[in-house]
Amino acid sequence: MIKNKDPIKKIQIDGLDFKIFKSGIKKNNTDLLLISCPKSSSISGVFTKSKTPSASVIDCKKKVKLKNSSVRCLVVNSGNANAFTGTKGTKTVNKITKFLSNLYGCSENEVFSSSTGIIGEELNPSIIISCIKTKKPTFMNSIEEAARSIMTTDTFPKYAISKVKYKNFEVNVFGIAKGSGMIAPNMGTMLAYIFTDLNISSKVLQKILANENEKTFNSITVDSDTSTNDTCLLISTNQLKNEKVNNFSDKFLNNFKQCISNIMLELAKQIVIDGEGAKKIITISVEKAKSITSAKKIAFSVANSPLVKTAIAGEDANWGRIVMAIGKSYEQVDPNKIKIKFGKYLVTNNGMKYSKYSEKNLSYYLKNKEINISIDIGMGKHKWTVYTCDLTEQYIQINADYRS
Amino acid sequence: MIKNKDPIKKIQIDGLDFKIFKSGIKKNNTDLLLISCPKSSSISGVFTKSKTPSASVIDCKKKVKLKNSSVRCLVVNSGNANAFTGTKGTKTVNKITKFLSNLYGCSENEVFSSSTGIIGEELNPSIIISCIKTKKPTFMNSIEEAARSIMTTDTFPKYAISKVKYKNFEVNVFGIAKGSGMIAPNMGTMLAYIFTDLNISSKVLQKILANENEKTFNSITVDSDTSTNDTCLLISTNQLKNEKVNNFSDKFLNNFKQCISNIMLELAKQIVIDGEGAKKIITISVEKAKSITSAKKIAFSVANSPLVKTAIAGEDANWGRIVMAIGKSYEQVDPNKIKIKFGKYLVTNNGMKYSKYSEKNLSYYLKNKEINISIDIGMGKHKWTVYTCDLTEQYIQINADYRS
Repeated sequence: MIKNKDPIKKIQIDGLDFKIFKSGIKKNNTDLLLISCPKSSSISGVFTKSKTPSASVIDCKKKVKLKNSSVRCLVVNSGNANAFTGTKGTKTVNKITKFLSNLYGCSENEVFSSSTGIIGEELNPSIIISCIKTKKPTFMNSIEEAARSIMTTDTFPKYAISKVKYKNFEVNVFGIAKGSGMIAPNMGTMLAYIFTDLNISSKVLQKILANENEKTFNSITVDSDTSTNDTCLLISTNQLKNEKVNNFSDKFLNNFKQCISNIMLELAKQIVIDGEGAKKIITISVEKAKSITSAKKIAFSVANSPLVKTAIAGEDANWGRIVMAIGKSYEQVDPNKIKIKFGKYLVTNNGMKYSKYSEKNLSYYLKNKEINISIDIGMGKHKWTVYTCDLTEQYIQINADYRS
Repeated sequence: MIKNKDPIKKIQIDGLDFKIFKSGIKKNNTDLLLISCPKSSSISGVFTKSKTPSASVIDCKKKVKLKNSSVRCLVVNSGNANAFTGTKGTKTVNKITKFLSNLYGCSENEVFSSSTGIIGEELNPSIIISCIKTKKPTFMNSIEEAARSIMTTDTFPKYAISKVKYKNFEVNVFGIAKGSGMIAPNMGTMLAYIFTDLNISSKVLQKILANENEKTFNSITVDSDTSTNDTCLLISTNQLKNEKVNNFSDKFLNNFKQCISNIMLELAKQIVIDGEGAKKIITISVEKAKSITSAKKIAFSVANSPLVKTAIAGEDANWGRIVMAIGKSYEQVDPNKIKIKFGKYLVTNNGMKYSKYSEKNLSYYLKNKEINISIDIGMGKHKWTVYTCDLTEQYIQINADYRS
């Protein structure tokens, strides 16, 4: 897989066209991404579960649910979330949609949009429309620049590129994503767009996306805050000559599913690594829990604990805080059976500190950039893994004056 | 009511005896509080709901549940939480209890203990026992010094003193508390001890304590982390000559209930003001919600949002984050009905920014030390108020190297 550290990549999927603009919503950077797809491209999506979703989220949700949903174009702006903007926000989405459906000669149901940035500020549709009408794109068809144009407080553009076999066909898959604060489970988390050329129905795409979403984007947390705008779309141009995939259980599809999963996990991890102010990525694996729900609740209780995250930021082996966080999940546990490990180092056993516990080893281990914490509950056979980052002073600095 | 800013107060309840020691668990400060009560004093308690509670919490929980529970002495140490210390932790509590029951010639069921400090470190009972046996108390019967001796990262001792009438009797009430991090709803949050001389049964005390706890200690949050050691005890020496109160519905008891509530709220607010790194106290009042549960969930979703708390730390009127936090409570709301106010300033109306919104007024308002946010959901008649503090860089500094 090609990750974001590799050289700038051009899009290798026929018929996909990316235009990247400086519309002026942001002061100096690219802030508008316009993507057009061949006719009858398939689309699927998962979205924030927030009860105060943005106008675009409401619009996209409706459109992916349509029978035989398809996509002709997608426009994404950063710098303004167009959320909690009332009927004006809805009108903005409608105006942009109408303009693009005319431009591409397609149904309004084939036009999708996303916004990210400040909540509650009015988004003027004319800025976007006149930009597309009159301005020359700053970049064309660069995956990296597309990823950069949707950034807010992100410090690097996030993308991943891969290939996979379906029968004898070589399938292209790539994805871009953004997000670094307001990141917590449920949907979706942030913006992510994944593209492929496999000939596949929207219905099957939707099922793949929803399945893989749980273990990837829905298993990361930066700060436990969930955005109003979270959106992940999986789009296929259907340009490959394979017979259309209409069956989710098609056994030849397994590699493709795994590939989508890998791309999503890679993007999810890039988001965590770029968590606001983050210096370390923390993987929390809960094992031998009574149920998947229980494993998940415990893992997120630890991953969302500010005290656990600040201790790791300080490279302080304060493992007692993990015990606290397990306790406050309110899941039934037997303290005597809990085994906590930092990397390969066992720290608890028999309901107390491990007899061969070494503070020195642990402190040394905590100097790593990647910290693995595993928690064996000893009560069942279910497991779940969650990814998070440490909580540093920079998180506060970034967020205390985000708008100024 | 006398609050913590007033001059040092001596205990005015007959038969209560406070001894404050430097036991050596902490390096330089007082760290041990030994309280003895007259025979047959009443006791009630509420505790952390953590599934990894400390040895003392397990012990106290059992004892307050006994029929006609009573208390003869209470010992509290700071500097070590004696939590997740396995069977050794339980033995420590038993040894201290046995020693004190011999010292006071009482049943072991009348000896209560609490610990606060680092989790997972063994607490040697000999330090406490030999301190009580051999050392001279550093202070006697000072409410302020008692409060100081149970501090961990607290920056000031927390106490409140009041008087109230029961029929013709003047009842004394006072309380001390500690807590500044690992503070979140459920129980009790932190350590708090409230004393009175009203002649009243443990059963009635328990009911009063549990009732008032919900709206006071259980409605504050500093960092959403819940301690393994949270304990609040309400003790009466029964020294007043009133006929014993055995009936919770006794109409003469209303003033007393209100007084207990006031003391608890005052202590709860002191804890929030002293939240680790906090510079502002934030009151979040949710009104016109569909149910109390709904009002509470929304209020806590806002109060626990790091993005809301950092914005207030930065005096940034980023009210969109409040919308986000309402949304991520997953409570059913109609965005068009939500009215958000900062102090007297309306900021949203009709699902968007209020037409007369003034950024200048809001920014000026946010310079206050006390910030009131009210959220009118417009869907019912229920309300709940939660107290929290802002999230500053100092929170991270304090917690990144708590143990070093």
